[in-house]
Amino acid sequence: MPDAKERVQLPNIIQEIVASYKDDVPVNRFFDAGLPTDCDVIALLQTLRAVLYAGYFGQHRMDKDNVQFHLADSVYLLYERLREQIYRSFRHSCDRADFPTCNHCQDRAEAAAIDFLACLPELRRRLNLDAQAAWDGDPAAKSFDEIISSYPGFHGITIYRVAHELHRLGVPLVPRMMTEYAHSVTGIDIHPGAKVGDSFFIDHGTGVVVGETTIIGSNVKLYQGVTLGALSFPKDERGRVIRGVKRHPTIEDDVVIYAGATILGGDTVIGQGSVIGGNVWVTHSVPPLTKVTLAAPKMNYQEASLEKKLRGV
Amino acid sequence: MPDAKERVQLPNIIQEIVASYKDDVPVNRFFDAGLPTDCDVIALLQTLRAVLYAGYFGQHRMDKDNVQFHLADSVYLLYERLREQIYRSFRHSCDRADFPTCNHCQDRAEAAAIDFLACLPELRRRLNLDAQAAWDGDPAAKSFDEIISSYPGFHGITIYRVAHELHRLGVPLVPRMMTEYAHSVTGIDIHPGAKVGDSFFIDHGTGVVVGETTIIGSNVKLYQGVTLGALSFPKDERGRVIRGVKRHPTIEDDVVIYAGATILGGDTVIGQGSVIGGNVWVTHSVPPLTKVTLAAPKMNYQEASLEKKLRGV
Amino acid sequence: MPDAKERVQLPNIIQEIVASYKDDVPVNRFFDAGLPTDCDVIALLQTLRAVLYAGYFGQHRMDKDNVQFHLADSVYLLYERLREQIYRSFRHSCDRADFPTCNHCQDRAEAAAIDFLACLPELRRRLNLDAQAAWDGDPAAKSFDEIISSYPGFHGITIYRVAHELHRLGVPLVPRMMTEYAHSVTGIDIHPGAKVGDSFFIDHGTGVVVGETTIIGSNVKLYQGVTLGALSFPKDERGRVIRGVKRHPTIEDDVVIYAGATILGGDTVIGQGSVIGGNVWVTHSVPPLTKVTLAAPKMNYQEASLEKKLRGV
Repeated sequence: MPDAKERVQLPNIIQEIVASYKDDVPVNRFFDAGLPTDCDVIALLQTLRAVLYAGYFGQHRMDKDNVQFHLADSVYLLYERLREQIYRSFRHSCDRADFPTCNHCQDRAEAAAIDFLACLPELRRRLNLDAQAAWDGDPAAKSFDEIISSYPGFHGITIYRVAHELHRLGVPLVPRMMTEYAHSVTGIDIHPGAKVGDSFFIDHGTGVVVGETTIIGSNVKLYQGVTLGALSFPKDERGRVIRGVKRHPTIEDDVVIYAGATILGGDTVIGQGSVIGGNVWVTHSVPPLTKVTLAAPKMNYQEASLEKKLRGV
Repeated sequence: MPDAKERVQLPNIIQEIVASYKDDVPVNRFFDAGLPTDCDVIALLQTLRAVLYAGYFGQHRMDKDNVQFHLADSVYLLYERLREQIYRSFRHSCDRADFPTCNHCQDRAEAAAIDFLACLPELRRRLNLDAQAAWDGDPAAKSFDEIISSYPGFHGITIYRVAHELHRLGVPLVPRMMTEYAHSVTGIDIHPGAKVGDSFFIDHGTGVVVGETTIIGSNVKLYQGVTLGALSFPKDERGRVIRGVKRHPTIEDDVVIYAGATILGGDTVIGQGSVIGGNVWVTHSVPPLTKVTLAAPKMNYQEASLEKKLRGV
Repeated sequence: MPDAKERVQLPNIIQEIVASYKDDVPVNRFFDAGLPTDCDVIALLQTLRAVLYAGYFGQHRMDKDNVQFHLADSVYLLYERLREQIYRSFRHSCDRADFPTCNHCQDRAEAAAIDFLACLPELRRRLNLDAQAAWDGDPAAKSFDEIISSYPGFHGITIYRVAHELHRLGVPLVPRMMTEYAHSVTGIDIHPGAKVGDSFFIDHGTGVVVGETTIIGSNVKLYQGVTLGALSFPKDERGRVIRGVKRHPTIEDDVVIYAGATILGGDTVIGQGSVIGGNVWVTHSVPPLTKVTLAAPKMNYQEASLEKKLRGV
């Protein structure tokens, strides 16, 4: 039950909050068709996971004989969820959204959803290579099932590959929402626009950042905390950042990049078979077959006696 | 159905677990009023997000005309959730919690909830500047809507600014639970006690740590993995850490700090307009307009032949 | 309602997705007993948290008198959840899973669940020491209750210690799913096989990686972004990684490792009482009582005028 003070104050506060919605600023926008929401995108990704890895994440106990029936059901559900979220994304970006009789965004959403689903067999073939790369690259892996059911690197790569297909089909918003969901649960932040070859493995993964215009070859392995980022942003004559140019590095085939390394710049190329050591900061190209490491750290014997030391650092 | 072995053993095990609750140690504490819980705090933050960005996260399709009705409803709900969690936090820390007729914590909770809600218009003005800073600072941003609906940096800053207001109003526990929720979903860990100026942008964000006594000016940009932390902790004559002194750095206006840089110490000041390069470790002040970078890494051409290299690192 | 185009195309797409399940590759596996699922493991961990810290996370308002009744109830629930998930894990790895009359996995699961529950009093004693280490190590901690209810480091260590007990009991899959859940919500990735002494504290924690064969002594403190990892993997004569050898470092008692440091290699020992500075990369042993730091970074005064600088970095 509201007390006297609150009865007096809340209506005034609400009036002020409402008034703060008057200006034409980004935080005050409203959307005709509704934006895709976190919840919708997460539900979509869960349905998708049950289609991609039916034995691992499907709702039912399945075998090679009955899987076809469950898959049919899941694919129809996936189609509906996908079409709705893609529709909202197209509608959000559409100039013709004011024309009440326009079916353009609806038609485009249906076509994009169908085109995406048609890619799934090929996507599954590539994801299987990624699972194989994790097995080859991690001696701690006890089984493929462990990789597919619990490795964050594999989960992050799955979502990135899905988002990249939608990005390629020109769908706005949803691909980035997908990779941000992956970022949230795995700590791995791969922009949907990045291009990544086969047999990709990310170990541990927390803190990995792969920027929008990065190109990664085949058989590349990244450890946690690796950044493939922009060095600086070209600006136009009015000081505004120019969007769309290549700002992120190119990583050729068979490269390994250790924990915490940072590689920056659109002209930076890491040559085939090179190894980038941990915590290294690279802003220029590295030739093929090169090992780049930090200078050795300084060791100081401490003056503190053990006893003093153990009382507090 | 329990088998014979379990029927014999489980009651004994339960007795031993119960016995482990007898000692007066931290893991054995009980609370009269209940602590705020994760679930409650998350629900509160979701209601708050629907008030701060009604067009993006509200439950209903809204426009500039009907938004006032939905906002009124959401603000009342928010008030109730906030008052309950603030009450639990005050009660938890209250010396008078044993007096059954005492309404002190209840009254303080109502006042704090009202004071917090009264800040929301100003908070929205500042959050709009943060959205603008993200747009200016990230060429990969396709729209403000993408920033507000899916950027983890913007989400983390929103929750930090909310938690900071509650911290400023003297509310215990809940602000930290809020920033730890943000930490969990974004990887960005900003202590509610830190002070942060306008137009703040954190790109990617995973691994960012901003300590309790940090002061950050306006127009500052941080990348993932940046630590603004303590160098060492002053201790009293009995070796216990002293709490409350300034232990974390001051970052002046217009500073950019790249991925993985670590800046430590309560006396450390990064001067206006300086740029701290990636993976740098700074424990002393840096003058204005200074660029601090790591020494160039060592490049070693590898002896391994390509063929050998490609068989394994 | 499906449109014409979709009616034609979806059945064909489904046939192709079904066809992609024909090959005998990892992504196509099916499991007789069902794998443990994310949801099950998370529910299990929540029940466990209510047993370990009944006053903090229990469903009911409890005190020292009634806690025994609620604990009894929670332990029975925990036993059932644990037995089911352990059963699925054993069954998944069992050679005899084809024998319909075999109760072997069921019996082993019951025994392992009972053995695990019998460890809980000792586990609670050790977790209490970890809470104490967080209090001693973090001047920002306002109360033990804050540590137990919201510190990600404490949450991550709790789940690691639980997973380690199950790993020690020979349970496959579930321990790793538990630590990957912790990884997802805290950013802290400790392999269940690692061995960790008493009074362990991880501050902030995002990006911490502790590998499978790591050994950590008592009273060790890690900051965010610390990696205790493998330097390289020994391979057999056919180029396949050899699993099971010690690949990760040994950290002796009373060591502090600052943010972003990386320590690699199975023969690397960090001696008692040493301090490893932030962002350092260590691949060789460090004697006791030694402080290891990065070389000082380079400072360059920028040529840019303030005005130019402020227009864009």
